[in-house]
Amino acid sequence: MPKMPPVPYVAVIFTSRRRPADEGYAALADRMEALAAAQPGYMGHDSARGEDGRGITVSYWTDEASALAWKDHIDHAEARRMGRERFYEAFTVRVAVVARQFHSGDAP
Amino acid sequence: MPKMPPVPYVAVIFTSRRRPADEGYAALADRMEALAAAQPGYMGHDSARGEDGRGITVSYWTDEASALAWKDHIDHAEARRMGRERFYEAFTVRVAVVARQFHSGDAP
Repeated sequence: MPKMPPVPYVAVIFTSRRRPADEGYAALADRMEALAAAQPGYMGHDSARGEDGRGITVSYWTDEASALAWKDHIDHAEARRMGRERFYEAFTVRVAVVARQFHSGDAP
Repeated sequence: MPKMPPVPYVAVIFTSRRRPADEGYAALADRMEALAAAQPGYMGHDSARGEDGRGITVSYWTDEASALAWKDHIDHAEARRMGRERFYEAFTVRVAVVARQFHSGDAP
């Protein structure tokens, strides 16, 4: 869990169902993660995927323009094609403005 | 993945790191899920937890008042105590307004 910046900031919620076939996915996911981290406005992300193939990644952005630039980025070109054809049965992207937050426990 | 209602609506993003001990967690999680589904304004949720103990649950709400009522609910009483003392090393809750969204693939 990345540190929590002060609100408001933007969360991009990516939910997906993976196909069973796995080939090449880890490489793409690593590349996408490195690419996201290099975008203007990127502030970190959380990610989890269960054994049933359902996954959620939430990335955090300073502002909506940065988040939308990343949404457009991931919605296009190679990742879009590979994601739709090879890796995901379905996915959704939601762009949301974080208005309130709280934390419990160790440093995130 | 629940169906996507029209924007704007509210997403409550719950990220957590589980402790290794597991006893009683599934029962609490099931009870919390049923309780959430019975709250006014609840519209569904997505959930994923990896083998490393990191998990994300995103619940969807018609409006911020409903989402905050649930945040206050989960932040209190038994779940708060059990969650902090027994199940989670750390957790965060973010309340966010979904402004844009898109979907690809099979029905969510």
